[in-house]
Amino acid sequence: MPVSETVPVSVPAPSAVHSGQVAITGVTITPVAFADPPLLNAVGVHEPFALRAIVQVHTDAGVTGLGETYGDEGHLARLRLAAQALAGADPFSTNELRSRVARALVADTTLGGHGMSGMVTGSSTADRVLSPFEVAALDIQGRLLGVPVSTLLGGAVREAVPFSGYLFYKWAGHPGHAEDSWGEALDPAGIVAQARTMVDGYGFTALKLKAGVFDPDAEAEAIEALRAEFPGLPLRIDPNAAWGVETSVRIGKRLEGVLEYLEDPTPGIAGMAEVRRRVEMPLATNMCVVSFNDLPPAIAAGAVDVVLSDHHFWGGLRRSQTLGGIAETFGLGLSMHSNSHLGISLAAMVHLAAATPNLDYACDTHWPWKNADEDIVVPGVLGFRDGAVAVPTGPGLGIELDQDGLEKLHRQYLDCGLRSRDDTGYMQRIHPGYELRSPRW
Amino acid sequence: MPVSETVPVSVPAPSAVHSGQVAITGVTITPVAFADPPLLNAVGVHEPFALRAIVQVHTDAGVTGLGETYGDEGHLARLRLAAQALAGADPFSTNELRSRVARALVADTTLGGHGMSGMVTGSSTADRVLSPFEVAALDIQGRLLGVPVSTLLGGAVREAVPFSGYLFYKWAGHPGHAEDSWGEALDPAGIVAQARTMVDGYGFTALKLKAGVFDPDAEAEAIEALRAEFPGLPLRIDPNAAWGVETSVRIGKRLEGVLEYLEDPTPGIAGMAEVRRRVEMPLATNMCVVSFNDLPPAIAAGAVDVVLSDHHFWGGLRRSQTLGGIAETFGLGLSMHSNSHLGISLAAMVHLAAATPNLDYACDTHWPWKNADEDIVVPGVLGFRDGAVAVPTGPGLGIELDQDGLEKLHRQYLDCGLRSRDDTGYMQRIHPGYELRSPRW
Ligand SMILES: [Mg+2]
Ligand SMILES: [Mg+2]
Repeated sequence: MPVSETVPVSVPAPSAVHSGQVAITGVTITPVAFADPPLLNAVGVHEPFALRAIVQVHTDAGVTGLGETYGDEGHLARLRLAAQALAGADPFSTNELRSRVARALVADTTLGGHGMSGMVTGSSTADRVLSPFEVAALDIQGRLLGVPVSTLLGGAVREAVPFSGYLFYKWAGHPGHAEDSWGEALDPAGIVAQARTMVDGYGFTALKLKAGVFDPDAEAEAIEALRAEFPGLPLRIDPNAAWGVETSVRIGKRLEGVLEYLEDPTPGIAGMAEVRRRVEMPLATNMCVVSFNDLPPAIAAGAVDVVLSDHHFWGGLRRSQTLGGIAETFGLGLSMHSNSHLGISLAAMVHLAAATPNLDYACDTHWPWKNADEDIVVPGVLGFRDGAVAVPTGPGLGIELDQDGLEKLHRQYLDCGLRSRDDTGYMQRIHPGYELRSPRW
Repeated sequence: MPVSETVPVSVPAPSAVHSGQVAITGVTITPVAFADPPLLNAVGVHEPFALRAIVQVHTDAGVTGLGETYGDEGHLARLRLAAQALAGADPFSTNELRSRVARALVADTTLGGHGMSGMVTGSSTADRVLSPFEVAALDIQGRLLGVPVSTLLGGAVREAVPFSGYLFYKWAGHPGHAEDSWGEALDPAGIVAQARTMVDGYGFTALKLKAGVFDPDAEAEAIEALRAEFPGLPLRIDPNAAWGVETSVRIGKRLEGVLEYLEDPTPGIAGMAEVRRRVEMPLATNMCVVSFNDLPPAIAAGAVDVVLSDHHFWGGLRRSQTLGGIAETFGLGLSMHSNSHLGISLAAMVHLAAATPNLDYACDTHWPWKNADEDIVVPGVLGFRDGAVAVPTGPGLGIELDQDGLEKLHRQYLDCGLRSRDDTGYMQRIHPGYELRSPRW
């Protein structure tokens, strides 16, 4: 795994960099928007742009660390609040960053809600806000010490991290716009064709279908069609809790022996626990276990077999490792969740996954849905081969910010007018009769 | 916290040290013995010498890391087995060290038993064997990178780590030998006098009584005498599971409002859970929860409120942090256990405790029971002030091996003839009628 030519290695003498001798001098938070196809899910459809916030943490050691997180307005306000609290903090103390962020959020009474992008609810606000700063701090540490972030996390146990091909029902294009290159996928044949494109293009060795969109039996049929077309690939389905318990059990039984796991068929710990008792298949979640507080009741209830980690809402890479340790201790499998994301998140996900021995499944990623020419990292380091991304070997995250790309996606953010993710509202503007129902079937 | 003058800072250019570029070239395992007073406990009495193993891990980067662990013969055999498996491994990958040690132990069929020193049973063999190598690896990392181990663990959240004064019933001296400087402590007055010496000498701000030696009411009386003499100090009692459930409940009720926690009154998760339901006081353990496998059943049973971590049997510093994360997640308090130990262990305990935000209690240490002139680290860095040890700020563990001290204590090991800890056998040689009973009361 050669280091990209574009990654400059800039390391001061280590005697100058140990704890207490580096301070955060400033933070730059840049909201960005990048094109997103009309991907359908249980609460609506992706809008034409996905929002993210790019976080740059500057230090008096002349090194800047990178983080990436949700771009919703409420979350941006919290990021700014946290950034102010981090002035002067030592990026070598992620413990200190955590306590400062928690204090800053507790002290604030102006911000209601939780400002979380997308479909995961109930996760810890402090952990969501901490995450990009923690990642940036580890990036800073790695750059100053000359080691990759995976090494700071205990060492990479794999040279490349496998991802699953993430299939979506989708329209041919956004209404009023041209068809995108993926085209329509509204039935089993469309999903199989999409999977073929993904597997051929990226080499994915596992496939996941985002469901909860059509009649559950039609979605089960799509899984069966994938099984027939890709006999060797592990398959997952994720209806995002769109099914009631009885529907979950019925479809689960239909797909026993076909799926490697059934992800969030139904809402809540109690419902998941009942489905799990009645279906012979691992149940996975990134919805009923989304924070450390959810673990004790979910474990006590026997609600799930597999937890999808996600450093964006589990408080960064080190806290995600704690989640990994809890999963190992309690006999839970470990996979990884994804939202629409850019290269900084991909790099962070890869370092974390590489340093997590008990990662049991290929990770999710929305990467293929992003236009190849839209990103905020310099190309060359991150790429898929045989469905996996090689762990960057340069210092820190091993990637560099592409200032032009950042500027372009920030301008796109300013121009697009979107300020919060709203899959349901977008769907309702197109189909006024669309209603949010949970569970839907 | 100034760095001791005796700590040389030797740091190669960091570009030469990142993962994959440093290899373990050899390991030196040195069993040592140091004088130990006749401290009484639930299974007998400390022999005249305590055994430890000092582990030096050498690298091709010219830096050696230090670890300290149990010195029993079975454990030494396993350490040697693990050491062979670590040749060529990257000390920057503690994940790799863990998997190599586990494989080496699984592959070996010649070693029965678990080779664990002392009174804790049932902990994971692989974690016990891994521990000194993991600590040495972090010491190597810190020395090469120029950062303290506490920084590698997420950053010190306290400048000094508080310890409790560890009180023991004891004879005036080992039979056939002169009285030691502590003298006899066989009743409440003796314990109070011992506590006074400890508090005056070290400034401890909490006190723990090792019990399970005399009639439980006599031991409760000692606690009450301590409460009268030291009204402001938190108190703990640890009978090492010498009491049945009914005795535990009776003594527990007697000491409600007096103790900060009651440690291992009775054997086993079920017994502890019953005591916990009937006594209004936190229950702590380093006996019924001693490995990750014990956590799920102990949590399910509601057996304890506080877990005493111990990096010597929880697999090193990073795995002990995972334990800390589990404690935080499941609402368990966190304290720290001690066996008789030397300076490398003390330094490691201090770095771990410093980087553990949710450490809720002063840590245990046997340190005062060791002769001040017997150690294997160069003096100057580790010292008690107001009952606390300042976190070393030098690279790695921040301490240096004292070769003369090591040689002296190794010769003492060779000369003393002890090869395994045997509190019960020693007691029986002195009092042939002594019987091991659990619970005793
Ligand atoms: Mg999901
Ligand atoms: Mg104990």
